[in-house]
Amino acid sequence: MADYYLEDFEPGRTYSSPTRTVTEAEALEFARRYDPQYFHLDPVAARDSVFGALVVGGFQTAGIAWALVHATGMFERSAIAGIGIDELRWHKPVRPGDSLRCDFALIDARPSRTQADRGVARFRYELKNQRDEIVLSLTIIQMLRRRP
Amino acid sequence: MADYYLEDFEPGRTYSSPTRTVTEAEALEFARRYDPQYFHLDPVAARDSVFGALVVGGFQTAGIAWALVHATGMFERSAIAGIGIDELRWHKPVRPGDSLRCDFALIDARPSRTQADRGVARFRYELKNQRDEIVLSLTIIQMLRRRP
Repeated sequence: MADYYLEDFEPGRTYSSPTRTVTEAEALEFARRYDPQYFHLDPVAARDSVFGALVVGGFQTAGIAWALVHATGMFERSAIAGIGIDELRWHKPVRPGDSLRCDFALIDARPSRTQADRGVARFRYELKNQRDEIVLSLTIIQMLRRRP
Repeated sequence: MADYYLEDFEPGRTYSSPTRTVTEAEALEFARRYDPQYFHLDPVAARDSVFGALVVGGFQTAGIAWALVHATGMFERSAIAGIGIDELRWHKPVRPGDSLRCDFALIDARPSRTQADRGVARFRYELKNQRDEIVLSLTIIQMLRRRP
């Protein structure tokens, strides 16, 4: 997998990441640093939120999706830089103990107009829980290396 | 600030967050968990990347923007849930040692059609470094409580 380049991703084909279980400890740790809202920090107070119990922060969920896709090793040689994210949506709460995997597919790719060794790719991510429910989806735009 | 509700944000007015300096230790810690690419993890290997030196991960940068906006206290009573993010762009690298603040403005807000106590707001974020350069921008969509 580690020698994937821009042109090696097949448009429309769905690739799957490994699975990762979110622990309560890492949810609380992330919340303290980046998302200190009571429904991410306090299991008792969270009962009074719309979530009804502690919920993993949305920015952490997005980071886990990114981590999972990169855990495939498919971007080890090709990754140059991130450009942006479009249409990110949090569809369902993620709870500590949930096991997540990310299915992803290339939407399109185009060579750079100015630099022959690279191009811009867009991928659609669907992060799913152990019940196969989509909890997060997003489109990521990345600069990737072309095959030398 | 803590008693802000949906209708208290003035459209078009720019609010500013406090400032936060990103340490190399927290950059490496985030990278290990969520973004283990060599230009986020290894200061020596990062010299051969397009960044020329260690760079803070893009998902961490987004999380910092969110944390900074919430550090204003303006969402303490109003925040219900995040809905999504549109048009996130990483404009410039963020380096360990950079001091970041987030300027944010309400784009628009509309009451929920089905639930009288809440509405949907869109905010534009511009995360800036100590040279006042925009390093990240995004539009966030949130469900917020209306003034009782």
